[in-house]
Amino acid sequence: MANYDTSFLERMIDQALGRMEADIVIRNTRFLNVATAEVAEGDIAICGDRIVGTYEGYRGKVEIDGRNLTCVPGFIDTHVHVESSLVSPGEFDRCVLPRGTTTAICDPHEICNVLGTQGLDYFLEAAAGTVLDLKVQLSSCVPATKLETAGATLTADDLVRYKGHKHSIGLAEFMNVPGILYKDPDVLAKLAAFEGCHIDGHAPMVSGRDLNAYLSCGIRNCHETTSLPEGLEKLRKGMQVLVREGTVCKDVKTLSPLITADTSSFVSFCTDDRNPLDIHEEGHVDHLVRTAIAQGVPLAHAYRAASWSAAQSFGLRDRGIIAPGRRADIVLLDDLETCAVHGVISAGRIVTPALFENRRLPAPIGLDSMKLAPVSAGDFVVKASAPTGPVIGISVGSVVTEHLTMTLPYRNGERLPDPANDVLKVCVVARHGKNRNIGRGFVKGFGLARGALASSVGHDSHNVCVVGKDDAEMALAVNRLIEIGGGFVAVADGRVVGELALPMAGLISLKPFEGVRSDLVALRAVIRELGCPLPEPFLQLAFLPLPVIPHLKITDHGLVDVDRFELIAA
Amino acid sequence: MANYDTSFLERMIDQALGRMEADIVIRNTRFLNVATAEVAEGDIAICGDRIVGTYEGYRGKVEIDGRNLTCVPGFIDTHVHVESSLVSPGEFDRCVLPRGTTTAICDPHEICNVLGTQGLDYFLEAAAGTVLDLKVQLSSCVPATKLETAGATLTADDLVRYKGHKHSIGLAEFMNVPGILYKDPDVLAKLAAFEGCHIDGHAPMVSGRDLNAYLSCGIRNCHETTSLPEGLEKLRKGMQVLVREGTVCKDVKTLSPLITADTSSFVSFCTDDRNPLDIHEEGHVDHLVRTAIAQGVPLAHAYRAASWSAAQSFGLRDRGIIAPGRRADIVLLDDLETCAVHGVISAGRIVTPALFENRRLPAPIGLDSMKLAPVSAGDFVVKASAPTGPVIGISVGSVVTEHLTMTLPYRNGERLPDPANDVLKVCVVARHGKNRNIGRGFVKGFGLARGALASSVGHDSHNVCVVGKDDAEMALAVNRLIEIGGGFVAVADGRVVGELALPMAGLISLKPFEGVRSDLVALRAVIRELGCPLPEPFLQLAFLPLPVIPHLKITDHGLVDVDRFELIAA
Repeated sequence: MANYDTSFLERMIDQALGRMEADIVIRNTRFLNVATAEVAEGDIAICGDRIVGTYEGYRGKVEIDGRNLTCVPGFIDTHVHVESSLVSPGEFDRCVLPRGTTTAICDPHEICNVLGTQGLDYFLEAAAGTVLDLKVQLSSCVPATKLETAGATLTADDLVRYKGHKHSIGLAEFMNVPGILYKDPDVLAKLAAFEGCHIDGHAPMVSGRDLNAYLSCGIRNCHETTSLPEGLEKLRKGMQVLVREGTVCKDVKTLSPLITADTSSFVSFCTDDRNPLDIHEEGHVDHLVRTAIAQGVPLAHAYRAASWSAAQSFGLRDRGIIAPGRRADIVLLDDLETCAVHGVISAGRIVTPALFENRRLPAPIGLDSMKLAPVSAGDFVVKASAPTGPVIGISVGSVVTEHLTMTLPYRNGERLPDPANDVLKVCVVARHGKNRNIGRGFVKGFGLARGALASSVGHDSHNVCVVGKDDAEMALAVNRLIEIGGGFVAVADGRVVGELALPMAGLISLKPFEGVRSDLVALRAVIRELGCPLPEPFLQLAFLPLPVIPHLKITDHGLVDVDRFELIAA
Repeated sequence: MANYDTSFLERMIDQALGRMEADIVIRNTRFLNVATAEVAEGDIAICGDRIVGTYEGYRGKVEIDGRNLTCVPGFIDTHVHVESSLVSPGEFDRCVLPRGTTTAICDPHEICNVLGTQGLDYFLEAAAGTVLDLKVQLSSCVPATKLETAGATLTADDLVRYKGHKHSIGLAEFMNVPGILYKDPDVLAKLAAFEGCHIDGHAPMVSGRDLNAYLSCGIRNCHETTSLPEGLEKLRKGMQVLVREGTVCKDVKTLSPLITADTSSFVSFCTDDRNPLDIHEEGHVDHLVRTAIAQGVPLAHAYRAASWSAAQSFGLRDRGIIAPGRRADIVLLDDLETCAVHGVISAGRIVTPALFENRRLPAPIGLDSMKLAPVSAGDFVVKASAPTGPVIGISVGSVVTEHLTMTLPYRNGERLPDPANDVLKVCVVARHGKNRNIGRGFVKGFGLARGALASSVGHDSHNVCVVGKDDAEMALAVNRLIEIGGGFVAVADGRVVGELALPMAGLISLKPFEGVRSDLVALRAVIRELGCPLPEPFLQLAFLPLPVIPHLKITDHGLVDVDRFELIAA
């Protein structure tokens, strides 16, 4: 909180008592009380960054006519990788705060996988400058596994140095479930170092005794829940369930029945990975609240999950309810049922475009992150002993893959793509200058009739991922990616047909979010023309290398059988 | 948590996975899940001080047959002055832990008012030795007001030195409401010094804009709520309502309607001031839970208030639910509805009498705290200009008093008691060696037909309080109190007829709680013989000097009109 000295206390006391006008008063408004689950009526008085009055009459230096509005506490995105919005933290701020997201708890593990602690420093510096309250979790699993080559490693010692930083909030999603179950010493060292602090979870489909062991280590929540029985087991075992709606993973409809009057204190919302198109078209946390209410979640409890429950479960005890003494993070709605955002107050400041000017934000970093030499068609040849072998099966809107076994065209000891059956080649090329690894395999489900797609976003190590049926086009796409400093590239008929540059660590654009959004629209149209029916082909590509999500993935080391947590031959 | 290193993590993982037997397993039991509000069935596995398994089958080195039991999370007393139990922290531990209270959040402000930081040090040292988890709040208002003489003063600087101590938990009940409303610099300095930390409240009958101002300073809860409308206003303004059932103040029946599925996360329980007789006869937090359920509070939500809600609202995120990774604080019940305690597990240790042996507890302190010279009858003469004036009106089971105006017998410029109308003299004699103040006044409602009662317990400055109709008997009672080093004394017919010595700071016995209980029973019988119908005459006497509770009180400075917060003539 800003300026917390006794003179600020004096000013709050005087304004709360009505001895002087409040800084801002929302007059004659309705507001949702997440403690009593009532819609209340009256004035809301604000002094500095804090609410100082509810349920009483107030006058203010600035008065907002609240007669046609309903106020709710500011939304908290409990788990977000800002990098997935493809814009800088400053642009993310400008994009989501007007949607009502007044607090975002981010894990910068994408940029840390590329740049190490430099990424953490960048985000912590950004957090000091954004208007919304950006809390930075300390990325716990960089690299996510030993089955890939990341740009950096964050050790327990690296992380401990940031413990207690005013903009940080404990250890970020602990993805290395096998590392816990098999008692990996590095993994246990991190858990022990953060004992008693917040430790975020990541436990897709982990259940039974495995889940018990995972929780025993002090991990408290999970945003990777995708089915109702899975969610119920996690709630029953005391986990905060962070219901997610990202661009690929959309879980709100499925998990809404978890949110009741009994349970709403134990459920929160998050976006995880959400691109600027979706934020523009659907919204941010406001979209999740709206969707949950449409699914039948009681109004008060949907909003409680989006605010108070989220705040409590991360130890943010200064916010999450419209009440005196709390942070003045308030969303003004035209309609409660549809979560129609009219305006936002962030720590006592009315959110306007001008508010985003003059923020002190850090300069871009990691502009030379494509540390690989140009490739050629021959680099993508898949040598195999037989035509029958593993193929990654993808499905729309899921980061979980199938482990298929298919017989492919086979020539000169090479397995080949089978475009007629929608099987393409997929490769992952190391880009951090540590080695010249290339992982090779096949994927079914992209529906790409021609051309190739390449991306420098490839969770979580962010090596180059490329998919296509022609090795030469794949090489062209990768080489163009190197030229533009990373991003997304589409190639067809032997030439580049679309691209989006993400020169900051190969992950983040230097443009305003509006520019990224329109580039994405154009790129999406190009790819649709290539026959790909996926709404988010680059995101589906980007999650293929993530070996902490079942079932078959590919890294620069090769194909990973996630269930057995080992490399297999292509 | 004990022994938190990677080897403990390894052991927990192995036990959670069933690779090795758990340290303790409660087998085939039912247990209340406070997250889902369900009664679950299965095994509960414990490793060290922590739960490592629920909802799965386990075998243990020690196995408890849970077939006829229902387990609930350990109870948390959110606000207790251990001194009010009249026994040492070690005896308090032995007394309440077997009742299911596994965490007690205490405020040692009684002993701090007598001994200053020595009292804090004593409690913090005791907290390291008790079996139950004793959390020590830092007494924020020593002395409570400037209208009394305490034995010590705790300044903001004194308190800040203890901030972050592993057994401490923020600032204790902030009683000085007028100090906030009138912006007392010392008061504001304490609030500013603890910004962002937990700050406990105390706001009896504070409402409207006053309550808003109070809350704006970061104060989060209140245990002084005595009516439903008051409780509802506090809930609506985001306060955690700590529903209290002490020996004098009994609020559970009145406030039970506040606890619903919607609100239970915002309500907790506390005992505040509860003597060993009541603990023995009725119980501790178990009694509050039982009473709330009998009043119709839904089972799961009564238990949630007693555990999870309490833990969350004090930032104790490691407990409050029976789930893996949480502290193994478990109450085993014979019956859920009546909260019939069968046994207790405290941080993974089965509570038996032997568990209390070999605790390392601090030696008694403050054995020379009666720093006053003997008094004589003449010290209690009440000079007044007229027969009509103020009289304190007490009512059974309330610490709130009435401000009466009565005409009393009047002779030689002296107002005199009127025993026929149940009006006695009440005096408060300074005992901390700072001055020789005596406050003098009258009280209606004790029903004492003869004799005098004196006490060295007199909230919160703990000067000597004495009530009677005869000045000589009052002097005899006070002088006996000096001889025994403090405690309670009853005098009748010119001799001492009953007493309980409390030589530690004049507040705490050196005996085991069983001895104190039987002494109290004897003393109670004696006083009943003197005609006093009050169930707790010494407690009602002890609260007469507390000038932070409405409406008319008496300190060593004289009569205090609490509503106007000023001294008035007797």
